[in-house]
Amino acid sequence: MREFLLKSAGWTGNFSLNNLPGAGRMDIACRCITACLWLSDELRKDSIFHLLLEGPPSPPKLLTFNPLKLKRFYPDERNVASHIKLALLGKSQPGISLKIISFNEFLEQQREQKQIIILDSKGKDIRKTDISENVLFVLGDNRGLGEDIEGEKVSVGKKVYLSSQVISIIQNELDRREESWKG
Amino acid sequence: MREFLLKSAGWTGNFSLNNLPGAGRMDIACRCITACLWLSDELRKDSIFHLLLEGPPSPPKLLTFNPLKLKRFYPDERNVASHIKLALLGKSQPGISLKIISFNEFLEQQREQKQIIILDSKGKDIRKTDISENVLFVLGDNRGLGEDIEGEKVSVGKKVYLSSQVISIIQNELDRREESWKG
Repeated sequence: MREFLLKSAGWTGNFSLNNLPGAGRMDIACRCITACLWLSDELRKDSIFHLLLEGPPSPPKLLTFNPLKLKRFYPDERNVASHIKLALLGKSQPGISLKIISFNEFLEQQREQKQIIILDSKGKDIRKTDISENVLFVLGDNRGLGEDIEGEKVSVGKKVYLSSQVISIIQNELDRREESWKG
Repeated sequence: MREFLLKSAGWTGNFSLNNLPGAGRMDIACRCITACLWLSDELRKDSIFHLLLEGPPSPPKLLTFNPLKLKRFYPDERNVASHIKLALLGKSQPGISLKIISFNEFLEQQREQKQIIILDSKGKDIRKTDISENVLFVLGDNRGLGEDIEGEKVSVGKKVYLSSQVISIIQNELDRREESWKG
């Protein structure tokens, strides 16, 4: 399974669907979720997205999205945000789980089971990186990851992209490898 | 200059910023514009986006976005949509032009000056395709391009992606080539 973790300044309580940028750049989180979980006409079956929210009023909160179980989930930012909002307000939804855990704690748990790849524009080219089947890609939002996190640093290019663009590029690189493995 | 053309069912009159999918999937257009024109912290200087709207009430309309001149332009769907809406309502904005021209007419005009690449999942692998400096990439929205358009068919992978994901992958491929040309 491919997993992605976004460290986000998104709010951890109620927010307005009419102002996602004002809710700790929740728009970034929404675009990343869409870039990660969607193909043209369907949700992916091979990917999971973890959104680690560090914004006010009650951080940290981890929302995990499993596309195998999601319902009424669409690619537009407002729809994705509406699911995040309901989850934060305590409403149970299929395919979305909520945990209270910090970024560092979650990452340490994951290290035991997965290859950890830290996205960093100065890292090694992803096209030249071995990627295992159980992998967690770790990205920051517009703030970046902010501290030196232990792990393999990998880059998708010399330019610094939007987090959602980075995820689209990674998914395509992994798809290409699987297609050639199968072919 | 890299140029992108999206053939969209987006509406050509007023629409609600609270329901972009209901306005002919205007959310797709917004995500494509962001994927095309943004880097992490800045608008690109090497790309232009053309949005060909074919939805009601008064198609066709072509909106062209030149990031060198855009003002108060942000990556979230709602902000991008607000600029589209103002342009359709006749308000002049820096970096955004409005023309009344059909998809086929515009494409024929462009053929004289540019390499035309039609995105098609069954096309030739983009990584193996020569791309000239003056290029126009042509994509459809969720409806696809719908008819057999003359031009070089190119693919970013065997999977069918969201149009915005396709644009992110293309931009990265072109960036990589430029980086190695300079290096």
